[in-house]
Amino acid sequence: MQFSAHQIATLLNGSLEGSPDVMVEQLAKIEEASSGCLSFLSNPKYEQYIYSTKASVVIVNEDLKLDRPVKSTLIRVKNAYSSFSQLLELYNRMRLDKTGIEEPVYIHPSATIGKNVYIGGFAYIDKNVVIGDNCKIYPHVYVGDNAKIGKDTTLFPRVTVYFDCIIGERVIIHSGAVIGSDGFGFAPQDDGTYNKINQIGNVVVEDDVEIGANTVIDRATMGSTIIREGVKLDNLIQVAHNVEIGKNTVIAAQSGISGSTKIGEHVVIGGQVGVVGHISIANGSQIQAQSGVNRTIAEGEKKWSGSPAAPYNAQMRSQVVYSRLPELERRIEELEQLLLTKELSK
Amino acid sequence: MQFSAHQIATLLNGSLEGSPDVMVEQLAKIEEASSGCLSFLSNPKYEQYIYSTKASVVIVNEDLKLDRPVKSTLIRVKNAYSSFSQLLELYNRMRLDKTGIEEPVYIHPSATIGKNVYIGGFAYIDKNVVIGDNCKIYPHVYVGDNAKIGKDTTLFPRVTVYFDCIIGERVIIHSGAVIGSDGFGFAPQDDGTYNKINQIGNVVVEDDVEIGANTVIDRATMGSTIIREGVKLDNLIQVAHNVEIGKNTVIAAQSGISGSTKIGEHVVIGGQVGVVGHISIANGSQIQAQSGVNRTIAEGEKKWSGSPAAPYNAQMRSQVVYSRLPELERRIEELEQLLLTKELSK
Amino acid sequence: MQFSAHQIATLLNGSLEGSPDVMVEQLAKIEEASSGCLSFLSNPKYEQYIYSTKASVVIVNEDLKLDRPVKSTLIRVKNAYSSFSQLLELYNRMRLDKTGIEEPVYIHPSATIGKNVYIGGFAYIDKNVVIGDNCKIYPHVYVGDNAKIGKDTTLFPRVTVYFDCIIGERVIIHSGAVIGSDGFGFAPQDDGTYNKINQIGNVVVEDDVEIGANTVIDRATMGSTIIREGVKLDNLIQVAHNVEIGKNTVIAAQSGISGSTKIGEHVVIGGQVGVVGHISIANGSQIQAQSGVNRTIAEGEKKWSGSPAAPYNAQMRSQVVYSRLPELERRIEELEQLLLTKELSK
Repeated sequence: MQFSAHQIATLLNGSLEGSPDVMVEQLAKIEEASSGCLSFLSNPKYEQYIYSTKASVVIVNEDLKLDRPVKSTLIRVKNAYSSFSQLLELYNRMRLDKTGIEEPVYIHPSATIGKNVYIGGFAYIDKNVVIGDNCKIYPHVYVGDNAKIGKDTTLFPRVTVYFDCIIGERVIIHSGAVIGSDGFGFAPQDDGTYNKINQIGNVVVEDDVEIGANTVIDRATMGSTIIREGVKLDNLIQVAHNVEIGKNTVIAAQSGISGSTKIGEHVVIGGQVGVVGHISIANGSQIQAQSGVNRTIAEGEKKWSGSPAAPYNAQMRSQVVYSRLPELERRIEELEQLLLTKELSK
Repeated sequence: MQFSAHQIATLLNGSLEGSPDVMVEQLAKIEEASSGCLSFLSNPKYEQYIYSTKASVVIVNEDLKLDRPVKSTLIRVKNAYSSFSQLLELYNRMRLDKTGIEEPVYIHPSATIGKNVYIGGFAYIDKNVVIGDNCKIYPHVYVGDNAKIGKDTTLFPRVTVYFDCIIGERVIIHSGAVIGSDGFGFAPQDDGTYNKINQIGNVVVEDDVEIGANTVIDRATMGSTIIREGVKLDNLIQVAHNVEIGKNTVIAAQSGISGSTKIGEHVVIGGQVGVVGHISIANGSQIQAQSGVNRTIAEGEKKWSGSPAAPYNAQMRSQVVYSRLPELERRIEELEQLLLTKELSK
Repeated sequence: MQFSAHQIATLLNGSLEGSPDVMVEQLAKIEEASSGCLSFLSNPKYEQYIYSTKASVVIVNEDLKLDRPVKSTLIRVKNAYSSFSQLLELYNRMRLDKTGIEEPVYIHPSATIGKNVYIGGFAYIDKNVVIGDNCKIYPHVYVGDNAKIGKDTTLFPRVTVYFDCIIGERVIIHSGAVIGSDGFGFAPQDDGTYNKINQIGNVVVEDDVEIGANTVIDRATMGSTIIREGVKLDNLIQVAHNVEIGKNTVIAAQSGISGSTKIGEHVVIGGQVGVVGHISIANGSQIQAQSGVNRTIAEGEKKWSGSPAAPYNAQMRSQVVYSRLPELERRIEELEQLLLTKELSK
């Protein structure tokens, strides 16, 4: 898709400097842009690039002062960053604007399909499923019996939603994510084998959640594993059965939350963190990457680090001394030597 | 599906107290149950809930004594927990009771399909594949050339079984798991590039194994990567080429076992554990979450922790001192100061 | 497929000892081989097995000296190891030699499909996609709008390539890998919620790359996430948005690289390593398994270990002392006691 500088200026309600007819077909950072690109300048740190950029069109703040002429066409707006974000959003909406039901798909006759949906080829929608209005169900998605998908939700290719699971509105789930696989529960038997404990609960994902590629959320043994509204989960995360993750909590890639643990609201968890089962983490906690949380965090709004996780500052202090451990040992030896000599010399 | 208290009492061979006609359609924990739920009480710790629960029907031990009247219909049985487990099992079997071959599927004419199977839409069964009786092959499953799936096995949606791999009986594999991808083997060349070492072995998964969602088991370079009977693997686990995992071993989510390592029987491995290649781990070992095992564990039935993994008790002792490292350093400084003063004062 | 010893000897230009008519149909290690197997002997350490092996045919070096008769037919060649590797390659090429377009598949009319390709059942190829000559696109693969797949590339079952992504030539991507999912970017709002930052860049995978099962590579916010030629990525790896991984770098399973980080060439990264965002790692660095790299590594060709990662030798020294921490604390106590006694005795 190509747009003229004039079209974009009109859309953003901005004023033009330079040729209104120059065409752009790509968005790029100002320092990386080539001809045909639309870019923006907001951070004063990058002002130098306005003179060297190859971008055909640059969106700038209306009060930007120039020392010398620039080659690009400029569009002056009140807030260049937010205008550009608006364009990004628009651009993505246009790119991902798929509708209609392709062939072949499998849709059970008992399923209810909303208005204005996209259902891609080879998608599989089982008994009694409800798909809300404006949903985008990409190819190879599987939605099991009785599952409900709220309106305006996107399931990218190859998402699995097991039976009975409930997905909210405006949820985005990326390719390969699995919602509702069995929790990991086995009862040890006298002969050393394990009996499977049937997992008959489900997963509830509330509104405005985003779930990354190949992330797994297990169904509850009974009741629900719950992902509260606004939660953002990165890729390759493990959420075990009966976990609850509070509103607007953010978890980075490859972290794992063990069974029945309850994560509070506005918690921020870094990558590759492990959290043991049956504990809770208070609202606003911040857990550094690669930490291992092995007991309840009762006081909120604190920073934690290490495995086992400890208050951040204490952990940092121990970490620094850890790097000096060989020196410490040597100093102890010297002290011992010194004292021994004294003893002997007495 | 709805059942009356009378129907359930008959099924469990229990005696009824209260209305026999009350209907239930869901299973729930006694403390979370609402009207229409069937629950159970086994642990004396939860006895208080029998008076406040909203469950319509509760299964209790036959010897349970009540202080005051309860609102729920009770079903008295010998062992409430095992009766309830029986119901869970039955419930799940009913829910997951799919049979028949849906359309469209791809089944190569040379494949052998057992009796009473379920093959979901868009499943792909390649040349010479054998699918045993009573198997459930969900939608989007891929089974490559010459693979064999034993009877009573369930492959949930989007499982991949590469060519030549052998899956046993009563195995359960969850969505997105990959069995038989190439082992990670490359020969470094003089020019800095790597040549792929062709991986021509397979994966053998024995009977009664369960494999979690998005877990990966690589095929052997030659021979077989072997998962022995009764092994339970959680989600997002990595099992590299030529690994062997012994009978009834249990591994939690996001752990990784490197190439050619041999894990014994009845080993329990926590989440996010890493095990290096070409070592062995003795029977009955217990490895704590986030450990890194970097050498053979020859003596069985021991507990290990940390990275590098050390005997659990020693590790715990070091861990405690680690948190006091800044204090230790200060004490050393004080000792040095004291001795220095002494030296000077001599 | 069965071959006679004579056929193999002819193929490898080797000389035969023993029956030329014995048939083999499998490849196996000399110590594990059974009748019907072809094996090889290259490492003198394994020479003993030549007398006990059940392999029907063994490829050996032309100068191998025998003490006593062997049961297997021998094929003498210049370099037994490289002759056997040649056979492995040939064997795999024959096994994986699929061509043609199966039914049903979804190929958008605007897509360009090269010559001599394999496109498996239920594969989905969207608008303007270009698939190069000799590509193998296995069942359930999804290739989004405008994506390009270079010639001689294999996408195993259930690979997802999101829209706009570019895959090079001779690339191998294993089952369940996701290329081009959204980067994890959210702008915090005043009300505690997060706004999604649209991710409009793509992923570029250059020639001769191999990507493991269920690995995820996110698309850039703008511009490209880049995997340079010859890179080998194991299973279940996370590569975040705007990362660049340099030529011939190798990363083991379950490692994660955070956003905008730049990994150099010929870097070797072990399993379960975490690398924070916005840093760079110099060429030839070696990062031990389970390390956490939290700052730029500017000097190349060094070995790093631990979390936070430190130079390998320093880390090893601290690690050794860590295991003696309880003893160290005791020695400090003894010193204090000794000094205290002295003070008191003064």
